[in-house]
Amino acid sequence: MLTKGQETRNRIIQTSRQLFTRQGFQNTSISEIIAATGVKKGNLYYHFPSKEELGIAVLTDARDEFYTILDNSFAGKKPEAKIIHSCDSIMALMQQTNFVGGCLFGNTALEMTDSSSRFGIIVREVFSRWTDMIAKELHQVATTSTGPINPNILATAIVAILEGGIMLSRVYNDKTHLNNCISIIKMLVENKN
Amino acid sequence: MLTKGQETRNRIIQTSRQLFTRQGFQNTSISEIIAATGVKKGNLYYHFPSKEELGIAVLTDARDEFYTILDNSFAGKKPEAKIIHSCDSIMALMQQTNFVGGCLFGNTALEMTDSSSRFGIIVREVFSRWTDMIAKELHQVATTSTGPINPNILATAIVAILEGGIMLSRVYNDKTHLNNCISIIKMLVENKN
Repeated sequence: MLTKGQETRNRIIQTSRQLFTRQGFQNTSISEIIAATGVKKGNLYYHFPSKEELGIAVLTDARDEFYTILDNSFAGKKPEAKIIHSCDSIMALMQQTNFVGGCLFGNTALEMTDSSSRFGIIVREVFSRWTDMIAKELHQVATTSTGPINPNILATAIVAILEGGIMLSRVYNDKTHLNNCISIIKMLVENKN
Repeated sequence: MLTKGQETRNRIIQTSRQLFTRQGFQNTSISEIIAATGVKKGNLYYHFPSKEELGIAVLTDARDEFYTILDNSFAGKKPEAKIIHSCDSIMALMQQTNFVGGCLFGNTALEMTDSSSRFGIIVREVFSRWTDMIAKELHQVATTSTGPINPNILATAIVAILEGGIMLSRVYNDKTHLNNCISIIKMLVENKN
């Protein structure tokens, strides 16, 4: 069971994550977080000595959650099926919020990595793990077919297509763009075009 | 020849564009723009009555410049060559700034389109025109080969791959990611995998 302090900490993280995802880290003030969580300023600073510490805690929490989603999403017997299933999971995840806010890691990449190395480290860790998981499956495909595509190169492109597709679907408020992107990934993975 | 007023207006736009691209629109204050351009506050507001108006002017200016780059970049005789040449132009453009700042339209998409419809309109216009230009060439490919890929779907995916690739290269400060993405686009366009 969580202590009252842990519950407060979690509530601050979850509420801040929503605000950071929708409006960005820089553009979210401590006052807004206090108003949205209902915690007192002193209590907030007790848990997070600075806004950067809170940002790192939010990103770390989101990273761990995404790793669990990724682990569960590579479901299926064939490596191709695992990759496609994981793409479908990303689509389902994005539809939960109707693409509002998009991908926190992609957003943080664009907003913070030029200016903060600590944010950059976590974001690179997420993209590297994600790419490696896809590449690992693609290596299995490569050993069973004559596909000439380098697994590591294709894995990078798959993460890029998904991130770009999420951005386009968010901009147009239309899931078609990410759907189109996933259909191209399916073709690349199944090596059928 | 430009009048003094036009010169000032241009200088404000170019300087603000650098600041918006590197650190975001919301995170750039009017005071920073005044300090960076050296214009007086009253003069800035004479040209741009609000920060939003300045943002729209910057985005419109960047859009027009990007359209010119795009028009010139679809060079070559064969449609496949035109698309690949335009991807290489994007790479060259990004390398000019070592990926710092990345793509202003992608950044604006992530930062502003949930909150400002005026920014969203321009960003969608850019992505739609870019996608249409690629799709137009892919339709030419489709008529000369038996490629089974729907040109409109592939065009959307190509823009997504490039935007995702720019983001990854920016995060890792390494052109390899965008290079890998472009090599997958070449394969898709040449229909050879």
